[in-house]
Parts: sequence; C-alpha cells; structure tokens
Amino acid sequence: MRIGLDVMGGDFAPKATVLGAIMALEEIPSTDRIVLIGQKNVILNELAENNVSADLFDIVHAEEIIDMHDKPIKAMSHKTDSNLVKGFSMLKNKEIDSLASAGNTGAMLVGALGSVGAIDGVLRPCLATILPKEDGRKSVLIDVGVNPDSKPEHMFQFGLIGSIYSEKVLGIPSPKVGLLNIGEEEGKGNARCIAAYELMFGSTSYNFVGNVESRKLFKGDCDVFVCDGFVGNMLLKYTEAFWRVMYKRNLVDDYMELFNYELYGGLPLLGVNGTVIIGHGISSKLAVKNMLLQSKQVFEARISDRLKSALSHTK
Amino acid sequence: MRIGLDVMGGDFAPKATVLGAIMALEEIPSTDRIVLIGQKNVILNELAENNVSADLFDIVHAEEIIDMHDKPIKAMSHKTDSNLVKGFSMLKNKEIDSLASAGNTGAMLVGALGSVGAIDGVLRPCLATILPKEDGRKSVLIDVGVNPDSKPEHMFQFGLIGSIYSEKVLGIPSPKVGLLNIGEEEGKGNARCIAAYELMFGSTSYNFVGNVESRKLFKGDCDVFVCDGFVGNMLLKYTEAFWRVMYKRNLVDDYMELFNYELYGGLPLLGVNGTVIIGHGISSKLAVKNMLLQSKQVFEARISDRLKSALSHTK
Repeated sequence: MRIGLDVMGGDFAPKATVLGAIMALEEIPSTDRIVLIGQKNVILNELAENNVSADLFDIVHAEEIIDMHDKPIKAMSHKTDSNLVKGFSMLKNKEIDSLASAGNTGAMLVGALGSVGAIDGVLRPCLATILPKEDGRKSVLIDVGVNPDSKPEHMFQFGLIGSIYSEKVLGIPSPKVGLLNIGEEEGKGNARCIAAYELMFGSTSYNFVGNVESRKLFKGDCDVFVCDGFVGNMLLKYTEAFWRVMYKRNLVDDYMELFNYELYGGLPLLGVNGTVIIGHGISSKLAVKNMLLQSKQVFEARISDRLKSALSHTK
Repeated sequence: MRIGLDVMGGDFAPKATVLGAIMALEEIPSTDRIVLIGQKNVILNELAENNVSADLFDIVHAEEIIDMHDKPIKAMSHKTDSNLVKGFSMLKNKEIDSLASAGNTGAMLVGALGSVGAIDGVLRPCLATILPKEDGRKSVLIDVGVNPDSKPEHMFQFGLIGSIYSEKVLGIPSPKVGLLNIGEEEGKGNARCIAAYELMFGSTSYNFVGNVESRKLFKGDCDVFVCDGFVGNMLLKYTEAFWRVMYKRNLVDDYMELFNYELYGGLPLLGVNGTVIIGHGISSKLAVKNMLLQSKQVFEARISDRLKSALSHTK
C-alpha cells in the first residue's frame, strides 16, 4: 500500500514527522511505500541530516503549509498548493491509500469531506479513541474532537458508529452503548445530553444501556461511551495529563502503559470514504511512527467499507 | 459552631453519614456541635448499633427524604418536612452555621438559593475543586457540577469567583485565569467557549491568560481553570476513575494521594450567603468525616464574606 504522511503538520514537524517515517520504514514490508507530502527541500534536508536516502520514500512537493493557526475552511480552499490539499487530492485519486497528519484537525476534517467525502448516511464524521478497561477489554470513546458543538442527532449516530467499530474492529458482540453524562438517572445532564438520551432510548439501532458517568470509564459497564466532541477531546487530553504525570513519577505498570498515546499515534476519522488518520498535535517521532503503522492497520481492516455496509443496513 | 449534616443524602447513607459524623467528633473541639438532620429513628438506630450516645449530637427529625431521584425544584417545594428543607431553613435562621450533604446536588443548589440566597451580583453559584499541580501549588477548577448548561456570562463570572477563591483561600496573588478549551488559539472550542473567551479577553476584573487545554491541568500555567459545569463534573469524576484505578494497582505516591477525593470530602458551594458543602454521592464514612471538617474550615475562612466584599468592589 501507499501510506501518505503530511510532513508539515504537528508541533514538532518536520523533524518528528520525518524521523517517525524513518522509524516506520523498519516495520513495514518493502512492498509498502511511505509518501512524504510537504516542502521538498525541507524533507530532503531532514533525510540528509539523518543519513537516510531519499530513494526510500516517495516525496510529493507542496509549497504552502496548512498548520494549527489556519482556519480550516479558508485554508483548504485558498492554499491549493499545500500539504493537506495535495494529500487529500492524492487520497481521492487513489494515488495514496491513506493520509495521516498530526496537524490541523479541523483542516483534516474539511479536507476529508471535500475530497473522499462522508459515507452515505453519515451526518458527521467523528474520532474515536480506545480506552483500556480494568478487566483487560477495550472500550470506545466517541467523539473525541472533530465536533465541538455536536447536536443530539450526531451523538445518536456516534453511538451507532462506535457500536460498529467496537463490534467489527474490537470484536465485541452487541456492544453496550452508554451516553457519557454527569448523572445516571434519566433527565440528568445538559440540554444536549437530555435530548440525545431521548433519541437513544428505545432505539433498535444499537444496544443502548443508558447514562453512564465518567468515573466508570475503566469499568465493564459499557463498551462504547458517547459524548460530544468537546467533552471527548477534553477527556482525551486530560488522560494525557495523567499519563504524563504518572510516567514522570515512575507510576506506570502494564495497565497504565496502555494510556500512552504515543503507542497509538493517531485516531482514524470514522465515517469518511477513505483511510484518514489524525495524530496528536504534539506527536513525537514515536507517535508519528505508530500513526503510520496504524494507517496500515486501519486501511487493512477496511473500516470504511464495514461502516458503509453496516450503515446501509440501518435506517 | 454548629455543623449541620444531612444524614439521609448519599449512596451509602445513613450508615456512612452517621459513621462519618462519629469519626468527626474526635477531631473537632467539644465546643462545636454536629447537628444530624434526618429520620430520628434511623439516626438513633445507627448510633445505637455503634454504641455511641445520642447525647453527643443534636438530632433534628425530618420525616421525608430528598434523594438522588428527586427533581430538585419539585422536591424542595413539596417535601416540606424533609432533610434538606429543614436543613436550609435552619441555615437561614442561623440555627446551624453550615450545611453539608452528599445527596442531591441540584436540590442543594435550589435549597441554598431559596433560603440564604445568592450573594448580590452572583449570577450562578458554582462549585470549585482543588487540583494539585506538579510544582506543589494548587489550582482551582470551576464550575464542577451545578451548572450543566452554563452560559458564557456565567463562565466569565466563574473566572472572577475562582480568582477570588484562589487569592483569598489559597493565597495566590493575582491568580492566572485560563479558559479550559480544546485548543489554545483564539476562536477554538465550542460556541459557548468562543463566546466566553470574548467576554474574558481584555477584562480588567481578573488576570485572564487565554485558552488552556486539559493536558495542562497539572502544570503551572494557570491558577484557575474555568469551564462549564458539565465539563467540570465530567473531569472531576474522571479524576476519581484514575485515582481509583491507581489506588487499586498500588500506584499512589505522595503527589497522587492528593487526588483522593475522600480526603476533601466535599466542595463549598461558592456564591451563596452561607456555608454549604456538597459531598460526593458515593461518599464513604471517611469522606463524610472530612466533609464535616471542611464545613468548619470553610465557615471559619469566611469565604462568603470575602466573595461578597470582593464582588462589591467589582462591577
């Protein structure tokens, strides 16, 4: 496969991105090819500095850069010769099989929607993260970042997408879907959650088990935790804060190590017609390496196809 | 002082509440008096079971119970002979100096507003929790639960209340106030945060330092983190999830021990004319004991008076 990487996106780009790509080389078969997208001279310099031959990669030049400070819609329509516009154009034309970036999440969403587009029936693509349960299983937290003002109907669908992801990718039969809320009783929460609950309750699209509090995120009660993208992103980054402080204080065991975001590298954008991986802005080279390996895994798991097929069977 | 305790509120009441009160007896001076409010026969039974004389407490009988399943406004207006209605009536009449409950947070808010009332100029009372920073200092996270649909103007004022709390109670001069958000750049976040930022930016009421992400919650960048009550409660309960799993796995050192909510016991409701302490629904006897000790500490710190005075000097 051809694994696309936006070299210019991320707080530690282009150093961390190029180094991550070099590390990934050692773990992918030689039939796969990593496609580095960005300013060619910058990429060549980084490779030269590390004594790595440019022949090991495909390099696609893009003069402009879309970064964290760009307004997504404006940047994606104006910066036509940029890392992300080129990347998504290649993804659409199947010149690459996946696109990964640790850059501007909003621009990644806009780019995906404007190129490969959303799967038929998907209201809003979303990001899911995996949380380790104390009992050794894995749960899905969805959405964790692309929909900061999710509407109740979006949250209803996150439950469906999360359920499909949990079943098809994590292998959990009839996943229990909970609405992340600040109380367990019906009628608790903010207006958005109260309305989402109404939509989820009694639905036959998935196995809804009611409200669930964040103190139960590592428990066995739920397989999928649904929240709006603002809350999910807040929890995701708070997880990182805990991981970091524990790591610094040498308080990491096998279970806690599962919270190390560097080992995941990135999260698949669910609900679009293609493999799009969104990395953390502060991605290190290790995180970039794993983001590339995850691109391969997500592509090969055919998550988009599975979602498409599952959604076509659901009203 | 007379320390009021709602004996009936909390998932483990009345056992945990009565046991917590018994434990607190040993740590308060004999001039203080704990006032147990609830069903007298239930209280007397619990005391008898523990071979503790009822003379050590004041007991105020309330026939009805307001618990987690009650709708706050309805319950506070209809259940006139209940634990919380009696408690707030006594607080208003200065028959008790503080009221603590691990029961229905919403009913506590309604009760406080309907009895002692909000401090002049306070739009919404709120709850603040203390988070330990890695550098040894303490920060304030506000609101963590009473305003699940906080408006931007409420969030603006949480910044002010948090700033006063940080300065007057934690002793931090000119506290740095940040808006908890999912990105640091201006214009990031959900609609509520974008609007709150507009109000905070350039304000002379406190030292606003901009957006801050949850991954920095243990860092030195901010002294006060402002968020809406839904997000704050979500983070508070997620902190508890982490604490529990670390504790179970023996991964607790001196710093991590500071996350043990049982040691705080409860949070003061800020912005009302009186000392009202709201405990965690799942309060253990240790948490209840500390909630009572905290009632004393908050009362003696005259937080309400300090807020009143500070607010009268601010437009």
